[in-house]
Amino acid sequence: MRDGLRELRRISDILPKALGYLDLPCEIGIRVEDSLGWYSAETVISSFKLPPKPKAVMDGYAVRVDDVEAASPVSPIPLKLLDASLRPGFDVDVVLKPGFAARVETGSLLPIGADAVVPIEDVVEGDGMIFVSKRLARYENVSLPGEEYDEGVTIVRRGCRITPQSIAGLILEGRGEVRVFDLRARILNVGDELVGSSYFKPFTHMFIASWLRWHGFTVDEISMMKDDIDEIASWLQRGGKPYLSILVGGTSMGRYDYTIKAMERINPEYMVHGFAIQPGKTACLAVKDSKPILALSGLPVAAMSTLEYLLKPLIRGLGLDIPVYPKVKAILTRRVTVKLGVKGFVRVRVYRSSGRLYAEPLMTGGSGALASLLRGNGFVEVPEDIEGFDEGCEVEVNLYGSVSQLD
Amino acid sequence: MRDGLRELRRISDILPKALGYLDLPCEIGIRVEDSLGWYSAETVISSFKLPPKPKAVMDGYAVRVDDVEAASPVSPIPLKLLDASLRPGFDVDVVLKPGFAARVETGSLLPIGADAVVPIEDVVEGDGMIFVSKRLARYENVSLPGEEYDEGVTIVRRGCRITPQSIAGLILEGRGEVRVFDLRARILNVGDELVGSSYFKPFTHMFIASWLRWHGFTVDEISMMKDDIDEIASWLQRGGKPYLSILVGGTSMGRYDYTIKAMERINPEYMVHGFAIQPGKTACLAVKDSKPILALSGLPVAAMSTLEYLLKPLIRGLGLDIPVYPKVKAILTRRVTVKLGVKGFVRVRVYRSSGRLYAEPLMTGGSGALASLLRGNGFVEVPEDIEGFDEGCEVEVNLYGSVSQLD
Repeated sequence: MRDGLRELRRISDILPKALGYLDLPCEIGIRVEDSLGWYSAETVISSFKLPPKPKAVMDGYAVRVDDVEAASPVSPIPLKLLDASLRPGFDVDVVLKPGFAARVETGSLLPIGADAVVPIEDVVEGDGMIFVSKRLARYENVSLPGEEYDEGVTIVRRGCRITPQSIAGLILEGRGEVRVFDLRARILNVGDELVGSSYFKPFTHMFIASWLRWHGFTVDEISMMKDDIDEIASWLQRGGKPYLSILVGGTSMGRYDYTIKAMERINPEYMVHGFAIQPGKTACLAVKDSKPILALSGLPVAAMSTLEYLLKPLIRGLGLDIPVYPKVKAILTRRVTVKLGVKGFVRVRVYRSSGRLYAEPLMTGGSGALASLLRGNGFVEVPEDIEGFDEGCEVEVNLYGSVSQLD
Repeated sequence: MRDGLRELRRISDILPKALGYLDLPCEIGIRVEDSLGWYSAETVISSFKLPPKPKAVMDGYAVRVDDVEAASPVSPIPLKLLDASLRPGFDVDVVLKPGFAARVETGSLLPIGADAVVPIEDVVEGDGMIFVSKRLARYENVSLPGEEYDEGVTIVRRGCRITPQSIAGLILEGRGEVRVFDLRARILNVGDELVGSSYFKPFTHMFIASWLRWHGFTVDEISMMKDDIDEIASWLQRGGKPYLSILVGGTSMGRYDYTIKAMERINPEYMVHGFAIQPGKTACLAVKDSKPILALSGLPVAAMSTLEYLLKPLIRGLGLDIPVYPKVKAILTRRVTVKLGVKGFVRVRVYRSSGRLYAEPLMTGGSGALASLLRGNGFVEVPEDIEGFDEGCEVEVNLYGSVSQLD
């Protein structure tokens, strides 16, 4: 297992097997009001029509179009005003007989028999009567049953993140709760240097926690631990653990890398160490109790590369639809190369100049370069079967930030 | 003021004046760990270099390149192994004299005098010696000071949402807190029908609350109230109010619309009722105590149109950089028309077919049509100076959902 690093695996190759060992995250019920951004565990389809009856879309007067067929400015048609209160939100069984009109506001359901609304400004009112000087088409200024909300519309799909409009639909359906996937994670930052470093503060674990939250995970534990195989292993085996466990740091082949050893110690059902991605090749994926454990580099770019190239496909493979980044095509300002057979994670800064988009590669500093994540706004994926892209080439960029305007 | 609706204002026309009455939201300090997605009130620039000294980017041996200049497989150069523990995160003042090598792991700072790292696999070790069979370029397998993190890099810009990489940078800078804009909102849902409707549950307020949260606002109050001018006005004037107050419902010219009257009652510094947007024209913007009050339609599409066309430009005008939606160009499958002089908010469903993107307008049902928001994944803005777009026209779509694949 330790020499897995000499034989780097393609993520697409190991994915089907890894998924075979994984359960889905638990499903839990949460209040609809609190469900924004969670991954729904159910598909909810709308079950009724709105409006339930024809409804006014303007303030005015409900009429029968047959009554005003002959209306014109020179011979306005008089209609008797019905003494009924028709207000939005209330459905009353009022009948509009021929020769009558009823005052309605925007949103009122029409009285039975009415089939159009004369706008308030097109009517002269006085003495319990109105005078209509214009004919109307049937259902003019009226919204018909099902136009606003209809049976059979997908409100939310299992595996998709819950949006503001999904919440609106769920509430309209009378739902107080919705079932979601409990995509909780915990993070353990491993390394003696985290506790005693003389020149930097550990930060990659918080980057990972924020990345996870940004993508709809809940992070309910962030801990630090010195290099100690027994303690790391016992943390991994602790009861009541959330779905995803992430170990940060200690994944390479150096003498002080205890993370991988701790993962071996707990006898995972599945484990693979070393992936054909650059940076991030030293990552390790294990499955224990049908839940994933991911060991990531303590270097931020390598960690992000693994989150994008390994964790995202894994979660998507389970049927949870992590949204993709917006993609733009941009012209590469410098050649980028990656070892053949390895998938490259190339940070770029996309900018607009003279109306065209350019992508400037920011590869300096390799896997530890936080600066490249801060300066950049996207990344280019270099597939395994090519060695890179030439300068001037049009590449597809995954944008995680906004594009700046240069001129 | 009540006939403001007959004279609809262009948002771009009223914006400069409205902004003149508004203060920025308060600035507060929050923990960096909790700051994801908040709008930063400060610009933070990085202040030091990482690594502080040349650093190993591989597990191996730190050497002086001059010592191994003549190395080759037939005449490997022997170097004495320094008995020093060089580990990531620690900076020790070890000197590497000529003829010596020191074991390093990925991330270790090199001993003084060393200027390259021989990878572990290119070395034969034994008896306190290593044998190097390959010459090295200066700084090979070494990361130089400033490559990972440098002075002068923008970690976060005032007015921008805080990202995972910003959080990493803030922590690295030793920041425990960051100053952010306190973009809190409260929502009052107004209308007798909300309490007693016989056929639907109110939901637009929760759609608005979720939209606000999605865009980085905090919503700390959602209330409902019957139509009562005094009570609405007193809610508006209550002390300790957050930055943005939103009233939902009761904005049109019907007999039961108390919201606008309540806004007039509190003597706002600025108020405009009626905008040249479709739907959403009945919206009202007021400024009281230098804070915005927005009255939105109770109909979800009209509410969203106002949030996109009025609230977003207003908040952006204050210098808070609300991210834009990804934009795609798509071919319109049906003609859309909007009244000249009015900006149109046309919901569309973008789909891909035979490799091209199409946008199907979903205008049925007008401003109340939640179904169009659920079925759709974006909207097209129709500018005031044109009447719409023809079928087959290429339009720019603001995507708020993902694009489905048709074939």
